[in-house]
Amino acid sequence: MTSAAIVIEDLIKCVNFAAEKHKNQRRKNPEKIPYINHPIGVAFILTNEAKITDVSVLHAALLHDTVEDTDTSFEEIENLFGKTVRGIVEEVTDDKTLPSAERKRLQIVHAPDSSFEAKLVKLADKLYNLRDLEKSAPEGWSEQRIQEYFEWSRKVVDGLRGTNVAMEQSLDEIFKKRNVI
Amino acid sequence: MTSAAIVIEDLIKCVNFAAEKHKNQRRKNPEKIPYINHPIGVAFILTNEAKITDVSVLHAALLHDTVEDTDTSFEEIENLFGKTVRGIVEEVTDDKTLPSAERKRLQIVHAPDSSFEAKLVKLADKLYNLRDLEKSAPEGWSEQRIQEYFEWSRKVVDGLRGTNVAMEQSLDEIFKKRNVI
Ligand SMILES: [Mn+2]
Ligand SMILES: [Mn+2]
Repeated sequence: MTSAAIVIEDLIKCVNFAAEKHKNQRRKNPEKIPYINHPIGVAFILTNEAKITDVSVLHAALLHDTVEDTDTSFEEIENLFGKTVRGIVEEVTDDKTLPSAERKRLQIVHAPDSSFEAKLVKLADKLYNLRDLEKSAPEGWSEQRIQEYFEWSRKVVDGLRGTNVAMEQSLDEIFKKRNVI
Repeated sequence: MTSAAIVIEDLIKCVNFAAEKHKNQRRKNPEKIPYINHPIGVAFILTNEAKITDVSVLHAALLHDTVEDTDTSFEEIENLFGKTVRGIVEEVTDDKTLPSAERKRLQIVHAPDSSFEAKLVKLADKLYNLRDLEKSAPEGWSEQRIQEYFEWSRKVVDGLRGTNVAMEQSLDEIFKKRNVI
């Protein structure tokens, strides 16, 4: 089997695994679209805009919320997709035993120490989520809460800079539009 | 860019396109899981069980219900994914202007004349749907309606034989279990 064939098999296996794991989850927007559209969209930002074709990064993008939001374990990810992918997913997974404010603080703290691969996934994740928020906010979010989310995202992104010009420029345009400096 | 890189870019673009098109659609099962899990699962049957790595077939599998069930046009598919993929998707798309019984009859009639690539997608589609039906039926389906669906599927599959041993064996096991001969 050629290497392209292995890459294809692994990508389809990975997106199918993520879709099955997230099948009962919906995005918080009023449209309640399937959650799986988010990790797929993050992977698409990475190939289409950031021009990333490192398969480990794309697998990690597709899997990035499986441990945080579903019954998936890091061991499962390592067994199916290898140690490198597991490592990136670990770096982008929040510790859900911590209170939300502490998790958000830690995202800012950990951003600069992340690996290049994890920084790519974090940038694409933030870009997807901020574009989503520009389109429509989750039910019950006040203008203030939305603005604070943009400001917090800016602080995380500041710790991820020097990684990918295209994504950082797109993020900066969003921050500028919202007057987040 | 290596050919593997192009393959990766196109696959992610394709699954993202299908996920966006199907985002408001759910499967008919009581669980109401996202519809996109179906085309992804069909592509996964093709790579994982049928050992197919022909990218055109996998693109067509991911897109196979977009024209039938969403606002997607064949032109859109040709522009984004090329003539070959468009051709396969056309072969597996029912004409929704026809009554349901006529569409089902035509699936039986057209099966033997389909291209090898379209037969692969049709076999994987039937295998996914019958496994789904084994797990749980759509709301309101009587035992008789379920049995008739198995019998109709058997007639379509009979016109697709001689294409892929693994999928045909799995389908035959299902037909045997349901006493569909
Ligand atoms: Mn995410
Ligand atoms: Mn289908």
